[in-house]
Amino acid sequence: MPKPTTVRDYIRTIPDFPHEGILFRDVTTLFADPRGFRMAIDQMLHPYAGLNIDKVVGLEARGFILGGAIAHQLSVGFVPIRKKGKLPGKTLSQDYKLEYGEATVEIHDDVISEGESILLVDDLLATGGTAEAGIKLVEKLGGNILSCAFIVDLPDLGGRKRLEGMGMDVHALCTYDGA
Amino acid sequence: MPKPTTVRDYIRTIPDFPHEGILFRDVTTLFADPRGFRMAIDQMLHPYAGLNIDKVVGLEARGFILGGAIAHQLSVGFVPIRKKGKLPGKTLSQDYKLEYGEATVEIHDDVISEGESILLVDDLLATGGTAEAGIKLVEKLGGNILSCAFIVDLPDLGGRKRLEGMGMDVHALCTYDGA
Repeated sequence: MPKPTTVRDYIRTIPDFPHEGILFRDVTTLFADPRGFRMAIDQMLHPYAGLNIDKVVGLEARGFILGGAIAHQLSVGFVPIRKKGKLPGKTLSQDYKLEYGEATVEIHDDVISEGESILLVDDLLATGGTAEAGIKLVEKLGGNILSCAFIVDLPDLGGRKRLEGMGMDVHALCTYDGA
Repeated sequence: MPKPTTVRDYIRTIPDFPHEGILFRDVTTLFADPRGFRMAIDQMLHPYAGLNIDKVVGLEARGFILGGAIAHQLSVGFVPIRKKGKLPGKTLSQDYKLEYGEATVEIHDDVISEGESILLVDDLLATGGTAEAGIKLVEKLGGNILSCAFIVDLPDLGGRKRLEGMGMDVHALCTYDGA
């Protein structure tokens, strides 16, 4: 196999995870490689050079890996959005639809101040359901989402259109057609 | 309230979470503050200046926030240890005891090479059960654990003694007596 040179080259595709028929884009091979991880974080930040970011918000759980690295690189704070019941303090919560049923994400209600400029990060943009719920939570606290940054975009699942329809700026490092 | 000056000052204590009688040491207030988060990551790394670290292994989920930041700072790869069923590739798994019952953590079986020098990170060391399971997974893959780094140590719960009894080097930024 040729040596990987781009972020995309480091991403592994695993068929039938978590369900039959899904091609799972696995970023753990990217994260495990020193050059791959460095490139991914640095490239995620390039669109925002010179812009003001007050806080990075990461979606559980792979968004924590990226968000921690990006927040430290920028010397700003990091705020987790977590699945229901995981945050110990007073929270706001937001429901969103899954393929079957519903889920809920939460944010601490005192971690973002009115008017703060927020970068939302996750590894992958599919239907955009979790990202939309995250955006709503940040906006309820008065935060302004400067942009949403992902490694992988699956545009055929509609997430990019959905977020752009909410007025969001969306960046991703690589795009895969199909589901 | 006086302005926080140390990592410890930024940590919030929440009573009765997740169970009655527990004083939960909440690092999310530390992470959300730009100075607090910067200080925490930088201070976690000070003991390792000049030492060779090949990969950072983080324990789900708060260990991902710290591990991502530390791996990027060091320009090394990041490897997640996750709860059962979350990793898409071929895994090794390790059971460990909880207060009531058991849990299982997993690691991809191809992400650490024989002899690699590993820094294991998590936010909090309590009984050390999860950390011990993580150490066993890394060692099964042939990795050498250089050290285990935490923000909070609760020594009365026995985790530090347990890890040191396994021959581990353990560092934490702050210690709280009692549970």
